[in-house]
Amino acid sequence: MKNIRVVTPLTAAGYRHPDDFKHLETETLRITYSQVAHGPESIEGRFDEALCIPPAIGKIIEAEREGADAVVIDCLGDPGVEEGRECVSIPVVGPLETSSHIASMLAYKFSIVTVFDEVIPFFEGLVRKFALQDKLASVRGLNIPVLELSTDPDRTLQRMIEESVRAIREDGAHAIVFGCSGIDCTNELRDALSQRGFDVPVIEPMPVAIKLAASLVDLGLRHSGRTYARPRPKSIRGYDYIGAAQ
Amino acid sequence: MKNIRVVTPLTAAGYRHPDDFKHLETETLRITYSQVAHGPESIEGRFDEALCIPPAIGKIIEAEREGADAVVIDCLGDPGVEEGRECVSIPVVGPLETSSHIASMLAYKFSIVTVFDEVIPFFEGLVRKFALQDKLASVRGLNIPVLELSTDPDRTLQRMIEESVRAIREDGAHAIVFGCSGIDCTNELRDALSQRGFDVPVIEPMPVAIKLAASLVDLGLRHSGRTYARPRPKSIRGYDYIGAAQ
Amino acid sequence: MKNIRVVTPLTAAGYRHPDDFKHLETETLRITYSQVAHGPESIEGRFDEALCIPPAIGKIIEAEREGADAVVIDCLGDPGVEEGRECVSIPVVGPLETSSHIASMLAYKFSIVTVFDEVIPFFEGLVRKFALQDKLASVRGLNIPVLELSTDPDRTLQRMIEESVRAIREDGAHAIVFGCSGIDCTNELRDALSQRGFDVPVIEPMPVAIKLAASLVDLGLRHSGRTYARPRPKSIRGYDYIGAAQ
Amino acid sequence: MKNIRVVTPLTAAGYRHPDDFKHLETETLRITYSQVAHGPESIEGRFDEALCIPPAIGKIIEAEREGADAVVIDCLGDPGVEEGRECVSIPVVGPLETSSHIASMLAYKFSIVTVFDEVIPFFEGLVRKFALQDKLASVRGLNIPVLELSTDPDRTLQRMIEESVRAIREDGAHAIVFGCSGIDCTNELRDALSQRGFDVPVIEPMPVAIKLAASLVDLGLRHSGRTYARPRPKSIRGYDYIGAAQ
Amino acid sequence: MKNIRVVTPLTAAGYRHPDDFKHLETETLRITYSQVAHGPESIEGRFDEALCIPPAIGKIIEAEREGADAVVIDCLGDPGVEEGRECVSIPVVGPLETSSHIASMLAYKFSIVTVFDEVIPFFEGLVRKFALQDKLASVRGLNIPVLELSTDPDRTLQRMIEESVRAIREDGAHAIVFGCSGIDCTNELRDALSQRGFDVPVIEPMPVAIKLAASLVDLGLRHSGRTYARPRPKSIRGYDYIGAAQ
Amino acid sequence: MKNIRVVTPLTAAGYRHPDDFKHLETETLRITYSQVAHGPESIEGRFDEALCIPPAIGKIIEAEREGADAVVIDCLGDPGVEEGRECVSIPVVGPLETSSHIASMLAYKFSIVTVFDEVIPFFEGLVRKFALQDKLASVRGLNIPVLELSTDPDRTLQRMIEESVRAIREDGAHAIVFGCSGIDCTNELRDALSQRGFDVPVIEPMPVAIKLAASLVDLGLRHSGRTYARPRPKSIRGYDYIGAAQ
Repeated sequence: MKNIRVVTPLTAAGYRHPDDFKHLETETLRITYSQVAHGPESIEGRFDEALCIPPAIGKIIEAEREGADAVVIDCLGDPGVEEGRECVSIPVVGPLETSSHIASMLAYKFSIVTVFDEVIPFFEGLVRKFALQDKLASVRGLNIPVLELSTDPDRTLQRMIEESVRAIREDGAHAIVFGCSGIDCTNELRDALSQRGFDVPVIEPMPVAIKLAASLVDLGLRHSGRTYARPRPKSIRGYDYIGAAQ
Repeated sequence: MKNIRVVTPLTAAGYRHPDDFKHLETETLRITYSQVAHGPESIEGRFDEALCIPPAIGKIIEAEREGADAVVIDCLGDPGVEEGRECVSIPVVGPLETSSHIASMLAYKFSIVTVFDEVIPFFEGLVRKFALQDKLASVRGLNIPVLELSTDPDRTLQRMIEESVRAIREDGAHAIVFGCSGIDCTNELRDALSQRGFDVPVIEPMPVAIKLAASLVDLGLRHSGRTYARPRPKSIRGYDYIGAAQ
Repeated sequence: MKNIRVVTPLTAAGYRHPDDFKHLETETLRITYSQVAHGPESIEGRFDEALCIPPAIGKIIEAEREGADAVVIDCLGDPGVEEGRECVSIPVVGPLETSSHIASMLAYKFSIVTVFDEVIPFFEGLVRKFALQDKLASVRGLNIPVLELSTDPDRTLQRMIEESVRAIREDGAHAIVFGCSGIDCTNELRDALSQRGFDVPVIEPMPVAIKLAASLVDLGLRHSGRTYARPRPKSIRGYDYIGAAQ
Repeated sequence: MKNIRVVTPLTAAGYRHPDDFKHLETETLRITYSQVAHGPESIEGRFDEALCIPPAIGKIIEAEREGADAVVIDCLGDPGVEEGRECVSIPVVGPLETSSHIASMLAYKFSIVTVFDEVIPFFEGLVRKFALQDKLASVRGLNIPVLELSTDPDRTLQRMIEESVRAIREDGAHAIVFGCSGIDCTNELRDALSQRGFDVPVIEPMPVAIKLAASLVDLGLRHSGRTYARPRPKSIRGYDYIGAAQ
Repeated sequence: MKNIRVVTPLTAAGYRHPDDFKHLETETLRITYSQVAHGPESIEGRFDEALCIPPAIGKIIEAEREGADAVVIDCLGDPGVEEGRECVSIPVVGPLETSSHIASMLAYKFSIVTVFDEVIPFFEGLVRKFALQDKLASVRGLNIPVLELSTDPDRTLQRMIEESVRAIREDGAHAIVFGCSGIDCTNELRDALSQRGFDVPVIEPMPVAIKLAASLVDLGLRHSGRTYARPRPKSIRGYDYIGAAQ
Repeated sequence: MKNIRVVTPLTAAGYRHPDDFKHLETETLRITYSQVAHGPESIEGRFDEALCIPPAIGKIIEAEREGADAVVIDCLGDPGVEEGRECVSIPVVGPLETSSHIASMLAYKFSIVTVFDEVIPFFEGLVRKFALQDKLASVRGLNIPVLELSTDPDRTLQRMIEESVRAIREDGAHAIVFGCSGIDCTNELRDALSQRGFDVPVIEPMPVAIKLAASLVDLGLRHSGRTYARPRPKSIRGYDYIGAAQ
C-alpha cells in the first residue's frame, strides 16, 4: 500500500476536498491530504509563492515523518518542490514539472493556460528551469482570480475553450496543460476542442503528478542526492513550524 | 485490467523472456509480448534501426488490433515510436524518451551509458529531438556488443560502474540512464555507486516506460493527433506484414 | 567524368524523368537515375518515410557498386541519407540538408514551403537535427497532395506565391526553400515575388543538392567515418533487396 | 543625496559592518544597512534561501518606507530580489544578476567561484534565469562554509587562487565573479592572477551592485511594471513582520 | 575627477552638442567629446559601419593618450568597441551592449526601436553576439533616416509611440531601448506609454552607457585582457590617422 | 565561362600566387585575383580585421565592375563579406562561413584549427553568427604567426597534426577545418590522421569556397536583398579607393 500525500500550500479553506482524487485511489494506492496553516489564501505571483514555500516545506517534512511514500504539491507554481527535496528522502513531485514533461512526450509543443497574464513570465521561467522552453508554444491567462475559478465554472470553461483554441491556432500548441490546480474541466474542454476538430491532449496536472509519484514509489526512484544536498546544520530564527530539516 | 504490449524490434531469439517484467504486473496490469520476424538480430546503429522500424510498426498495429491498451518499444533507440503513433490510437511509449524525461525531473543532469561509442551522435540526436539537450551531461559507451551484454554479466557490471563513475566525476551527471534495454544491473550499479559515495538515481528504462504507459492508460491520455496525423491512403509495395495503417 | 546518381525513394511511376536535370549536366558531370521498387507511392509523413528508407538504402548501395561518385536522395525528407552514409564510401547528399545550409548562407532566415501542414513538426525536427533552427523563419504547407502538384501547376504556383509572401511578411523569411522535390516553379515564383518587391533567393533543392554532390566529388570530400560508422556484421531477416551493407 | 539600502538576508551577527562599503560613499551617495531578524544564520542551499526570502521582502518594503532610493540584497543567491520588486517602486538589485551582466560585458566568458560544490546547480540555474548561460564558463566551489570564510582569510585566498586558475585554464574563463558576498579578497586575487600571467577582471559583486543601484536612481530607471506586477490584495496568515505589500 | 570621452563615429556636423550630456556631469565626472574626421555622415547599415570603425579606433586611442578614463561610442551599432578594446587599457563602452544588459535586468524581455527595418538583422546579430537573444522581444524600425530624426521631432515621437506600443502588445516587450543615439524623447515616450497603461522602462542608451563607464572607472574594472589581446606589431598601409595601436 | 575573383584582403606581398587554385579551374571556370593596397600585412585579430574591411569592400566593388561573376574573400575571418554583399549584385563568399556549413553537413561536429589562441573568441563569435555553434566542437590555435606558416611547413604540419588529434580525442571533433587561408597541408594532414585511425574530413576552406561560388553562379543564386540592403546615398570622407557603393 502506497501513501501519496497531497500538500495544499495555500490557506483558503475548502480549496481541496478529500475526495477530489478518490477516483485515482486503487487497492495499493491511498491518497492523503494536508494544508498549510501559514501564508496567503491563494497564490497568484512571486510574492505569494515566496510566502507559501516555508509552510510547504514544513508539510513535506511532516509527510515523511508520518509515513507518506511521496508528496505532491498542490499548486502549479511547484512551490517548495526543490527546497523540500533537500529535506526528505521520499519523492517530492511538482504538478507543473510533471505535466510539462508528460506534455512534451505526447505532443510536439504544448501551451499552459493559467489564471492571469501577469504570471506569464513566472511560468515561462519555470519551464525554462525545466529546460523545456523549446517545447512550450505559449502561456496564456484566463484573467480570472484563483478563488473565483470554481464559483463560476461556466465562465471558467468558456474562457478555457477560448484561450485553448487561440493557443492551438495562433501559437501552434499541440497539447493543453492547465496552469492552476483549481481548474478541473478536463473532459469538457477535451470534448469542446474535439468538436472544433482539434484532437489534442488536455492535461490536468494534479492527477498526472499523483500517478507519477506512485510510479516513482513502485520503481524505487527518487530525486538525486547530488542535485538536492541536505541542508547543513545551523541556527534558524522563526519557522518553528518547520521542524528539523537537517 | 490494462494490457501493456512490449514489442521487441530485433530478431535475436531469446532476447526477451516473458517473465522479465512479471514483477511489474499487478491485479490491474498485464504485460504481453511480441517480437518482430524481420530485420536485424540486434540494433547497434542507424542502418540496423532503419531496418527494424517497418516490422516494429507492424507489431504496433497488431497490438492495437489485439486489444492492447498501450505499446512499449523494447529498444533504447525508440525505433518506430513516432511512426507507430501515426498508425494507432493507443499510446506508444519509447524507453529512451521516457527515461530521459524522468531523469530530467529527478536530477540536474543525467548521462546515458550505452553499448558503443559509435552511437553517441545517434543518442545525442535523439535527446536533442526530445529538446532535452540541456539536461544531458554525456553519452558514454561500454564498447560491448549488445548480444554479449548478458553472456558476461560481470564484465557488463564492471564497465557500467567505470563509465558511470566517469559520467558523474568528469561530466557532471547526477543520474544514470541505461542506454540499452539489455542492461539490467540496476540494483548492483546503484549499490556500487552508493558505496563510492554517489547518491544518484539509476534508471532502467523498460520498467519506467511500462509504468508510464500504464499511467497514461489510467489517465485517458495519448499522443496528440495534431503532432501525429494518420497516414494518407496510398499504394504501398512490399511490407505485407504491416497490415492496414490508415 | 563524374557520375551523380539521383535515387527516387517513392514508387509512383513517372515521378522523375531522365531529362529533369539534364540542364545541370556538363562535359564532366553525368546524372543517372534509379527508383525504388518497394514502399509507398508518395511520402507525406513519418510512416511513409520509414517504409521508403530500407529500399532507398538498397539503391544507395547499388549506386556505389555501379560506380556512381555520389548519391542525391530525391525527397525533401532526406530519407536514407544518414543510414546510407553508414553503408557506402561515396558522398550521400540530402536536398533538405543542403538547401537549408545554402539558404542559411544567403539569407538571415529562410522558410520552407511544403505540401501539408501535418509535416511541419517533421520538417522542423529535421532542421533542428541540422542544428539550423535559429535560421528557420517558418515551415508552411500548401495543403496539396504530392501527386497533384504537377497535375495542376497553376494552382501549385498560386499557392506557392501566397505562402511565400506570408512567410516573408509575417514570419520574417529572407529566402524560400521548396519543401518537396516535386515543386519546380523556381523562376515563376522568383519573378512573382520580385514583382511584389521581394528580392529573396528561391531555392529549388534538387539542383542545389546535385551541384553540392559534384563539388564534394571534385574536392575529394565525403562524410566523416567517425559520425557514420560501418554497420557491424549480423544476421538480417528480409530485406534481400538491400545487398551487403557491411 | 541618494540612499542605497543594503539588506543582509541572513541572521548571523556581525556578518556585515557599517563601514564595509564606506569607500563607495560620495557626496551624493549614502549607504545604509539593515539585517533580517528571522531565518537562517547563513545561506548555503535552496532550503536556507527559501527561509530568508520572506524576511528579506519585509526589509525591502521597510527600506522604501524609510525613504531609501534603492535596495541591494547582500547575498549572491539574490534572495528576495524578484519577489521584492513586486512590492516596491524603487529598484531592487541583486549582486549575482548585476555582476553576471557586468562580467558578460567585460569578458568573453566568466566563472563564478562560490562556497560549496553543492550549490553549483543552484547558481547555474540562476544564470540560466538571467539568460546568460552562454557566457558562463563554469561555477566552482571552495568547499569552505560561509561563516568560516573570514575566520581564515589566508585559506580563503589560497583556495580562490586555485579555483580561479582552474576556471581560466580548464574552463576558459576570461573573468572571475565571487559567488558569496562574504568573499572580499579582490585586490589580492587580481594581483595573484596577474603574477601568473592572467589579465582578467575580478568582480566583487556587492560594490558592483551598489554602483548599479546608484546609477539606476540617477537615471530614473527601475524594474518593469509589466514583469513585476503588484501582489493582489488577499488574506495572509503569519509573516506579520512583512507589513503591507499591496 | 573622472573624464569620460564620448566618441561620435559619424561625420555629420552638429550631430552632438557639448551640452547634450551636461546634466550627467557631477563634481567628479567630466564628459568630453570628439568626432571622427573620416567616414560616412550617418550610420545606417553594415557598409557605413565598416567605414566608421577605423576612424573610431583612432579616436579611442587618442582618448587614452589625452588622459580620458573611459570611452563611450556614440552610435547604437557599437562600432569600434571590440576593436578599440584591443588597443587601449581604459574601458570602452558600447551603448547597445550596455543598454541591452540593463534592460535585461529590469524587464523580462525588451524591444529595440531603431531607424530602419533594414537594420533588424544587424541589430539582432549584435544582441546574439551579446548572448542576450532570449531576452530580446523584437527589433522594430521607425523608417526615418537618422539625420531627419531631430528635424521633425513630433513625427519621431509619434512613430516611437506607435512602434513601442506594438512591441509591448504584439511582441511581449516589457522595456523599450532606443536603437539610435539620435533619439532622445525618453520622458515624452515614457509618459505616453504610461497614459496607455504601460508601466515599462524606457532606456536611452547614451546616458546609461556613460553612467556604466563612470562606474567601471570607480570600481577599477576594465575589459579582460584574455578576451581582447593587443594587436601584434606589423606593417599597416594607410590609416595614418590611427596612430600606434600596439 | 564563369569568372571567380579571389580577393586577398591583406597587404603582405607574395601571400597568394596566381596558380594556387589553378587546379580548380575548368573549361567553364576561370579564377582571377586581386589584393588590397591598404591595411595590415596580416590579419590576426579584430583590429587587423577592421582595417582590412574597407579596402576589401573596394576590391569587391571593383570585381563586379570588372565583370567577375562572384567573389571569394581570401581570409578565414571572412572580412568584408557581409559589408560587400550590401554593395554588389554578385555572390560574395566567405571561406569560414562556407566551410563551417560544409563541415556541418559531413560530420556530427567539427573543430577549427587556426593561428593563435587569442582569436578563439573571435572565431567562436563568427560561428555563433552563422548560428552553427551547436556543431562546433572547438577552436584550437597553432600559435604560429600567419606569415611564418609557410616558411616552416614541417612545423606547421606537425602542429596541425597535434591540435587536430586533440580536437578529435578531447573535444569530440569529427571533421577539421583550417582556420587560416595560408594553411594548405590538406592531404598530409588527412593521411597523418588516417594513419592514427581517424577517418575524418579535412577541409581546406578556400577551394571549398571557390567551388561554392561557382555553384551559386551556375544556379543563378545570390544573397538575399532583404538581408543585405543597398547603402543609402550619403557623403563619405576618405576611402576614395572604394568607389561608388550605392
